Amino acid sequence: MSQLLRVQNFNVSSDGIGAGEDQTLERPFGHVEPEKLFAWAGATASWPMRTEPGGSRGLDDYFTRDFAWNIGAEIMGRNKFGPQRGPWEDHEWQGWWGDEPPFRTPVFVMTHHERPSFTLSDTTFHFVDADPAAVLEQARQAARGKDVRLGGGATTIREFLDADLVDTLHVAVSPVKLGSGVRLWESPDELLDRFHVDVVPSPSGVTHHLFWRK
Amino acid sequence: MSQLLRVQNFNVSSDGIGAGEDQTLERPFGHVEPEKLFAWAGATASWPMRTEPGGSRGLDDYFTRDFAWNIGAEIMGRNKFGPQRGPWEDHEWQGWWGDEPPFRTPVFVMTHHERPSFTLSDTTFHFVDADPAAVLEQARQAARGKDVRLGGGATTIREFLDADLVDTLHVAVSPVKLGSGVRLWESPDELLDRFHVDVVPSPSGVTHHLFWRK
Repeated sequence: MSQLLRVQNFNVSSDGIGAGEDQTLERPFGHVEPEKLFAWAGATASWPMRTEPGGSRGLDDYFTRDFAWNIGAEIMGRNKFGPQRGPWEDHEWQGWWGDEPPFRTPVFVMTHHERPSFTLSDTTFHFVDADPAAVLEQARQAARGKDVRLGGGATTIREFLDADLVDTLHVAVSPVKLGSGVRLWESPDELLDRFHVDVVPSPSGVTHHLFWRK
Repeated sequence: MSQLLRVQNFNVSSDGIGAGEDQTLERPFGHVEPEKLFAWAGATASWPMRTEPGGSRGLDDYFTRDFAWNIGAEIMGRNKFGPQRGPWEDHEWQGWWGDEPPFRTPVFVMTHHERPSFTLSDTTFHFVDADPAAVLEQARQAARGKDVRLGGGATTIREFLDADLVDTLHVAVSPVKLGSGVRLWESPDELLDRFHVDVVPSPSGVTHHLFWRK
């Protein structure tokens, strides 16, 4: 079976926005309260960041449970790693993800400003200056036959969609409207020329959108 | 985390029937055409019995994809293994599941008539004459920390529900009415005293029922 490129558990508002403006070290989602978009996931038993027992095991849990399933590498945009723009000024700071990042695979951070790779627990971060197709090729090799997760943010997902490299997308749409920020789409219908979609309302209030290639 | 006992991808009719009457070697589901209950699963990319590429990757695929996730053993009733009643008369016949059974773990077949264990590809079948709690204990040890799948049929699931040993259930309810056969429930509402439930209609026509303990 071929190695898929999969977007998983990506969260947007009802108007298609994945993160706010004015990202800072203290506010990775800028002016947006991330809880508004992520609360459904945090309530599940299988949420990768969960530290306490408990949590729901219904529909939403199938999506958080799937986060690591058959995934061998992740690709993310630079600003899912940190808020910096331009050259790196501090190699001591090792990203927003703590000493035990939830990825547990090689992670390829797309940036025009390379820096040395490093490992935190089971996750190794590589910094690559290349176009989407070339980064995907590196990630596939690192994934050793497994699929590759496209982690976001919205701008990065758009780049891979524009290059027609994405095989499946799971996007959870929250019933909150944000107005401005980093946009994934004007409407999910934009993808229907190339993808099938199942639209699945969850009792938690989000609506899961599941796309796969035609 | 504790080891859960999970029912997965169990299929019933709209009136709660999981298999027909008059099971034979040639007709594992008796008078019922199994395609009527299973077609949704066979259409997915991750269906464990799939031999050709292709298949859908929408909602239904999350359920077939989850079949083996963190599963270390399966428990099944004797008549998911074969149609025989009473003492085994033919040890040469090794069940309905072919040379490469989809379980790929130890499988504990509940029967009052024991026979020697045997292995087919990655699956080892054990035959145990014990009550549900004792069988579950054996399966948990064999699962080495992973969860245990309760594979069915309906009678076996009922026994484990009556003993209050089941942690989660995924039951796909098809829009076909069968009238008679082996019954899982009169109504899914019977479980609501002990379980939460998400009821999720799928575009394929089945309605997924997802139960987890209160």
